[in-house]
Amino acid sequence: MSVLPILQTHPRPLIADATVLARCIDECVACAATCTICADACLAEDDVRALARCLRLCLDCADACVDAGRILSRQTDPDARTQVTALEACVTVCRACAEECERHAEHHEHCRLCAEECRRCEQACDELLASLRD
Amino acid sequence: MSVLPILQTHPRPLIADATVLARCIDECVACAATCTICADACLAEDDVRALARCLRLCLDCADACVDAGRILSRQTDPDARTQVTALEACVTVCRACAEECERHAEHHEHCRLCAEECRRCEQACDELLASLRD
Amino acid sequence: MSVLPILQTHPRPLIADATVLARCIDECVACAATCTICADACLAEDDVRALARCLRLCLDCADACVDAGRILSRQTDPDARTQVTALEACVTVCRACAEECERHAEHHEHCRLCAEECRRCEQACDELLASLRD
Amino acid sequence: MSVLPILQTHPRPLIADATVLARCIDECVACAATCTICADACLAEDDVRALARCLRLCLDCADACVDAGRILSRQTDPDARTQVTALEACVTVCRACAEECERHAEHHEHCRLCAEECRRCEQACDELLASLRD
Repeated sequence: MSVLPILQTHPRPLIADATVLARCIDECVACAATCTICADACLAEDDVRALARCLRLCLDCADACVDAGRILSRQTDPDARTQVTALEACVTVCRACAEECERHAEHHEHCRLCAEECRRCEQACDELLASLRD
Repeated sequence: MSVLPILQTHPRPLIADATVLARCIDECVACAATCTICADACLAEDDVRALARCLRLCLDCADACVDAGRILSRQTDPDARTQVTALEACVTVCRACAEECERHAEHHEHCRLCAEECRRCEQACDELLASLRD
Repeated sequence: MSVLPILQTHPRPLIADATVLARCIDECVACAATCTICADACLAEDDVRALARCLRLCLDCADACVDAGRILSRQTDPDARTQVTALEACVTVCRACAEECERHAEHHEHCRLCAEECRRCEQACDELLASLRD
Repeated sequence: MSVLPILQTHPRPLIADATVLARCIDECVACAATCTICADACLAEDDVRALARCLRLCLDCADACVDAGRILSRQTDPDARTQVTALEACVTVCRACAEECERHAEHHEHCRLCAEECRRCEQACDELLASLRD
């Protein structure tokens, strides 16, 4: 599933190339879902105390991804600074969450998968940010 | 993207068949993203006043889908009634939103696509509900 | 802070008595904030493994309260079944979360405060549900 | 209602003075609720087309305030950059939303009340940001 088809029906011009924008929203949506599951899987592990930072960053990342995904989905009269700072906040927590999940990737497969998704989302947000700064 | 691979790494037994559960979460996630865009596209249409109910139901549907998708993603010590009522609330708004979007599907392609997604999500939630009631 | 003053400026007739509706939204908002903090405080406790169910129900409750609070805040062309099922889902998780937090109230002051807030929210939602069924 | 009492029961040291932190979370929560209602009230106005930017910024502001309020509520092993960028994103959209609501404050009382709340939230976030930069 991608938001690209419905984005292309929007009556207003998009703030960026439709493919770049859709990829960013798609990754925000996927990352939010992945982080929500990783946080809950961490909670069920015997070493949950060692995963406390991982769990909380997954929750942060899920929240920031939902937020950025929604703000970027709105293309009617957007405020440029609002779109950029939502993206910056999302990139920041994706990076922090990926780094923490990577530390546990050898022991927990959900952390390995989550780290990979956070890196994809980080990259998609970075790509959109770069195009907005052009 | 599907949550199925990461769901299958969860240390606890899932509340339902992994494929049925993952399909439901995937559709909640896709429907939330689709409805957010449809609401914003409605806002940009010349006949936004005629789309007021459509716009507000899309916002409701996005919120209920995020909520249900998150609650169902948590498989550690779930409360059965909480999972069921979140699903019931989600089915209800998916149906209402689909019906309203269908009324505008001929004039607005985003409403047509959104109605289709709401029906897929309604069906996936119904299927999971049926399996939980077995 | 209460949403009552701004609710009273809404151009449409409200679905219920303004005071009952505002009290319900206010409690959803307060309960979401309280549960988010209780979940995080549980994560920091030495006995987090014994608090896993409490933590996850606090996350569920925060999500359901945000969802219900938003859906009830929308008074333009509402769908009656959507409003009722969102409330029912919220009541259900408030009750489950209160019961679990009450089990830990003696040992953790945040659980005691959170249980009290969940009970207030449960009651406010029940009161609104009763008025909608009249 | 304020989150101050439950914040003070958190087992970990807080990232900032409890009063400053609680005031910021309280305003995020209040602003999210206020903006959700203002967006819906705008949708019901005869001049909704002139309020399109106001409506969409209110939705953005509600999302960013929920996000920042949640991330700041988590005091277990926080990532400093994540907390700061969530605050910066919140301040940015509060300011943009306040400016737009102020343009409609004479004609719509909900916009006047919403602008005031956005300014309070902007100020509370700024105050917390300043204390984090010290």
